Amino acid sequence: MSYARQLLDVTPVSADVEAGLLAAAIDAFNDCTQACIADTDADLGEHDVAEMVTCIRLCLDCADICTATAGVTSRPSGWDPNVLRPLLEACVAICRSCGDECERHAAHHEHCRICAEACRRAEQACRDLLNAIR
Amino acid sequence: MSYARQLLDVTPVSADVEAGLLAAAIDAFNDCTQACIADTDADLGEHDVAEMVTCIRLCLDCADICTATAGVTSRPSGWDPNVLRPLLEACVAICRSCGDECERHAAHHEHCRICAEACRRAEQACRDLLNAIR
Amino acid sequence: MSYARQLLDVTPVSADVEAGLLAAAIDAFNDCTQACIADTDADLGEHDVAEMVTCIRLCLDCADICTATAGVTSRPSGWDPNVLRPLLEACVAICRSCGDECERHAAHHEHCRICAEACRRAEQACRDLLNAIR
Amino acid sequence: MSYARQLLDVTPVSADVEAGLLAAAIDAFNDCTQACIADTDADLGEHDVAEMVTCIRLCLDCADICTATAGVTSRPSGWDPNVLRPLLEACVAICRSCGDECERHAAHHEHCRICAEACRRAEQACRDLLNAIR
Repeated sequence: MSYARQLLDVTPVSADVEAGLLAAAIDAFNDCTQACIADTDADLGEHDVAEMVTCIRLCLDCADICTATAGVTSRPSGWDPNVLRPLLEACVAICRSCGDECERHAAHHEHCRICAEACRRAEQACRDLLNAIR
Repeated sequence: MSYARQLLDVTPVSADVEAGLLAAAIDAFNDCTQACIADTDADLGEHDVAEMVTCIRLCLDCADICTATAGVTSRPSGWDPNVLRPLLEACVAICRSCGDECERHAAHHEHCRICAEACRRAEQACRDLLNAIR
Repeated sequence: MSYARQLLDVTPVSADVEAGLLAAAIDAFNDCTQACIADTDADLGEHDVAEMVTCIRLCLDCADICTATAGVTSRPSGWDPNVLRPLLEACVAICRSCGDECERHAAHHEHCRICAEACRRAEQACRDLLNAIR
Repeated sequence: MSYARQLLDVTPVSADVEAGLLAAAIDAFNDCTQACIADTDADLGEHDVAEMVTCIRLCLDCADICTATAGVTSRPSGWDPNVLRPLLEACVAICRSCGDECERHAAHHEHCRICAEACRRAEQACRDLLNAIR
């Protein structure tokens, strides 16, 4: 069981979101951050690094936004839909773009295939949270 | 001249945003992050820390979102309005809430008055950027 | 299998560190960051928040240092022991202090008990990496 | 006057460090983070991006470590030399390496010249703080 889940299970959450769904989302954001950081470094080590520039930039943006989203969703007692909704929409958009770009390189670079998968899961986690807070 | 400005002046920016406006926004986001981190620590040192809990939580959210917004706007070549617009909207919303809450404590805590000012400037910087990318 | 591990398995690491050990360390740093962020928020929700100020400050420092350590260790191709060694030593020190403080509150606050465990694991991961790079 | 300085001026700092020196250091860390993030993006836009890989990796490490150092030094009430000393030593080492590498590209890339300057200032700020806490 992840630390996000363990901590949510012992903390009363005032937000109207089920603890399992929220913990899965936080885990997905943290996983995506890690995948994007590691994929950036792997891209930088490829012979065709010039072809990977768009992928690197999207990974850097994706890591930044997933980090912020993980932080804000980990403080659920003060949740404000006016903040959370656009943040999750930004996170959906960058995870989709970054996932699409990583997928383009998946056939040649296994690290991009793995990162694409992490982006898809984080994108879906954003959508699940958006549905839950509506 | 800030480093954000110096670097933008020597880097061709493909986005349709004037370098001075963009550099001022990045500076405002970084200033707001710093003010929120320092204000959190000052709040924790107050005798009435129990009264400052909402302020601390908003400062932590505000620092996270301003950090992400500074990062993404510092990589302007790949700007995607579908990402940037909701991110700036989330940043407007948290800077307003955090600024409002800090202002509530401004009469008693000078550090909150200063942090409120940093939040207001970051909020305005978001609005200026939103206007510029429309 | 964590994303850190999946990505290390498909990326040639030039550093003389076994992939399993490195992936476990990165996972421990990310887990500790998440636990410290969530524990901070749980501390802020406690009736005795004034008693939790030291714990909150240590959690904030610990999250910042674990985040940096996760980032640097996730870019292993360029590892420089002159950077990595003191960074891991700083991480050992903050994980120990934060773990000790969290343990002091473990009997009353289950979230602190969980966070202490995450700090202990991250501290041990630092020591294992320090041994491996010597 | 920077926000770091304004906030330190109204907050009693228990650490034995002069507020002006501490505020200058925090500003230098934040400036260096910003310069490294912007320099990374500028490097990625260069025709000789394959030559810039080492520079990009060092900038990413430098931004991560400067961010953590700014965070920890912005919470001075709880300063622990056992944490702060190795963290500043890691920061000295990465700022020196990153500054050296940026300087190698300074003749061809103005953005690297500017980033090198930010690294030098952050390195010096670390040394000044290390002297002050001894």
